[in-house]
Amino acid sequence: MEECLFCKIINNEIPAYKIYEDEDVLAFLDIHPMSKGHALIIPKKHAKDIFEIDSEVLKKISLVAKKIAQKMKDTLGADGVNLYHASGRDAEQTVFHFHLHVVPRRKDDTICFTCAVIGKENISSEELKETVNKLKIEG
Amino acid sequence: MEECLFCKIINNEIPAYKIYEDEDVLAFLDIHPMSKGHALIIPKKHAKDIFEIDSEVLKKISLVAKKIAQKMKDTLGADGVNLYHASGRDAEQTVFHFHLHVVPRRKDDTICFTCAVIGKENISSEELKETVNKLKIEG
Repeated sequence: MEECLFCKIINNEIPAYKIYEDEDVLAFLDIHPMSKGHALIIPKKHAKDIFEIDSEVLKKISLVAKKIAQKMKDTLGADGVNLYHASGRDAEQTVFHFHLHVVPRRKDDTICFTCAVIGKENISSEELKETVNKLKIEG
Repeated sequence: MEECLFCKIINNEIPAYKIYEDEDVLAFLDIHPMSKGHALIIPKKHAKDIFEIDSEVLKKISLVAKKIAQKMKDTLGADGVNLYHASGRDAEQTVFHFHLHVVPRRKDDTICFTCAVIGKENISSEELKETVNKLKIEG
């Protein structure tokens, strides 16, 4: 993955503001932050998206997100946090190495995730029934 | 948690379009979907947000998200997916029982998560350095 920006960060070819690192996972500050402290968590082994990422590494990433969220509250005065992830170009993914955004939120900041839907879809109970049958997964 | 909407779904007091269930986790369709198939994953044991949720259950939720994402691709014609989560009123959380959104995306749908920032913050390298020191977590 010679041309992967995040692989270059992992390999220390590009500097980054690292906040967490272990053998599988790296977290660093987004240099184009949605808010002050906005962080990204990535797997060290290249995986394009949620469809490719190793399940054990994904679990680890979820825990790192929890730790970072707590730290944002404790040290950055965050009132809350958002997690955000995109898999696929049509889902607005722009860097094709899995990453989970952790976005610290503060009262009266300039973010509005619930504004992200331009036109709310109306869905009938028939469509919901049809969809639930397609998505069902055994527990 | 008598008044918690999601606890009522867990206790079968309110019906839901369930797509996954095990002893710790439940997933069901959002009845006000951002897109067709929009699903929510919740812990069965009440936890308000990412600060309260049990770490093992959070890991499980991340895996269920991966499975649902794959299923959305396989059965709903999704071209990609977003994960989205809010913890805290100032992060736009509205139901105070932890939930992770899994949003199927399709070319030319009406969602724009990257439009969610109304005013991008400019951040200096000094501020980034200051922030990284505050957020650092031992690996």
